[in-house]
Amino acid sequence: MTDIHPLDDALVLTILDDDRVAARTTAPYANMVGPFGGTISALFLKAVISDPRTAGNPVALTVNFCGAISDGSFEIGKKLQRAGKYLQHWSLELLQNDGVRATASIVVGHHDDVFSHQIASPPEVPGAEEVPALPGGLPLAWIARYKMHFVEGGPNFTGKEFSEPQSGRSVLWLSDEPARSLDYCALAAMADSFFLRNLQVRGTFPPMGTVTLTTYFHATLDEVTAQGTAPLLGTADCKRLHANFSDQQVELWGKDGVLLATSVQLAWYKF
Amino acid sequence: MTDIHPLDDALVLTILDDDRVAARTTAPYANMVGPFGGTISALFLKAVISDPRTAGNPVALTVNFCGAISDGSFEIGKKLQRAGKYLQHWSLELLQNDGVRATASIVVGHHDDVFSHQIASPPEVPGAEEVPALPGGLPLAWIARYKMHFVEGGPNFTGKEFSEPQSGRSVLWLSDEPARSLDYCALAAMADSFFLRNLQVRGTFPPMGTVTLTTYFHATLDEVTAQGTAPLLGTADCKRLHANFSDQQVELWGKDGVLLATSVQLAWYKF
Repeated sequence: MTDIHPLDDALVLTILDDDRVAARTTAPYANMVGPFGGTISALFLKAVISDPRTAGNPVALTVNFCGAISDGSFEIGKKLQRAGKYLQHWSLELLQNDGVRATASIVVGHHDDVFSHQIASPPEVPGAEEVPALPGGLPLAWIARYKMHFVEGGPNFTGKEFSEPQSGRSVLWLSDEPARSLDYCALAAMADSFFLRNLQVRGTFPPMGTVTLTTYFHATLDEVTAQGTAPLLGTADCKRLHANFSDQQVELWGKDGVLLATSVQLAWYKF
Repeated sequence: MTDIHPLDDALVLTILDDDRVAARTTAPYANMVGPFGGTISALFLKAVISDPRTAGNPVALTVNFCGAISDGSFEIGKKLQRAGKYLQHWSLELLQNDGVRATASIVVGHHDDVFSHQIASPPEVPGAEEVPALPGGLPLAWIARYKMHFVEGGPNFTGKEFSEPQSGRSVLWLSDEPARSLDYCALAAMADSFFLRNLQVRGTFPPMGTVTLTTYFHATLDEVTAQGTAPLLGTADCKRLHANFSDQQVELWGKDGVLLATSVQLAWYKF
């Protein structure tokens, strides 16, 4: 037994050569089928962050979920497409059984002390301790890897579809379970930890899955580190569910109302 | 002389082989340096839409602008990463003088008549004819390729920086100039036609450029086609400008208040 945090265990990478790493799924982050997408996003990011060629902090991450990832091992291939004075562009592929199961692009950039202005502000909400935690015992293992205190728009697990479409908005306090100091990889995983909006709007869970997810890291390394183990305030909403595709916009707020990250995704749903 | 629309001229592709097409910049869509990014996005999309292997309509497009594209010719390489029953994932690279200048990922999907619900609604604004058009004679050629009627948050071209940061929000009526029936490529280009938010918030134009742009196409082909040459209602806003990076969220609304597309981007700025 070691006391490695389950997220760090899920993010263990083995270097195969300069351009390839190996990883594997872990039971604590199991999804309905295969792994929780957030750990895949975080693994792509770690493959770049841990690369000796990387100069700067992650600023953008797009992950395309191309095919089902099975439980077990897989490889991530990476290519530094372009490295300039201020920015690097990386392209990545996740391969399992010789098939591409996910692709990613990552932008790394230098952060300097230049003009700064935050326009958006977090919603005013009661503290995490003042709202109930999502109960345990839910069917997907990865959900238990997050402490979620819903302020608004908690998930409907009754299995009963709403008679009318509801608001797509959720607001919650969110942190790793057990507690873990925030880093960019944890932030990348959290950006994919919001229940798909079909559940929110319809109260039901048709066959569905995230197709493509883009996360922007607005926080400098100092801001990420300063968050420590404090819960983040997350918001999620959507604009349109139509013709098999639904969107989702996410904000992740840190201490002192700092916008740490935002993400957007498109999910496919069957009916 | 032909009467080809300048956008169609800018999107002329020459097939080199199954996986490569050639294209070139055109003067009507010139930017400060090289081409308007919107035409690059549209060219990536056209390279996939025009491929005989493509089954379905575009639903998501991420473009990473890796390096400056010079005026002249370039190649686009494409790879069908994965094709399933409902979805296709494509990865693309734009090469000029043997260097990768941009990369893209495109998701193509089947649209069926399933659950549909639009949550977001367009802002209530006066019609395009009731608000003044952006005057011509602006320094960047591509701007003249759009008719822009700003309802709110027009650009500050005085060159004078605001004394205090202003709202990042703009609302405008937007259409191709000259008029052109809407298609997915035009929509992809329009998603990148919003002035970078630094200009909006600061009133000034530091060295800056779009680093990565993701566009979601919420509209079915019928909805895109039904738009015809009618102007779209566009909104843009941003949440944070910090440490050399600023974000931008865009909505593109069509007839009857239908949300045709949304886009998000991260731009780099120098100071």
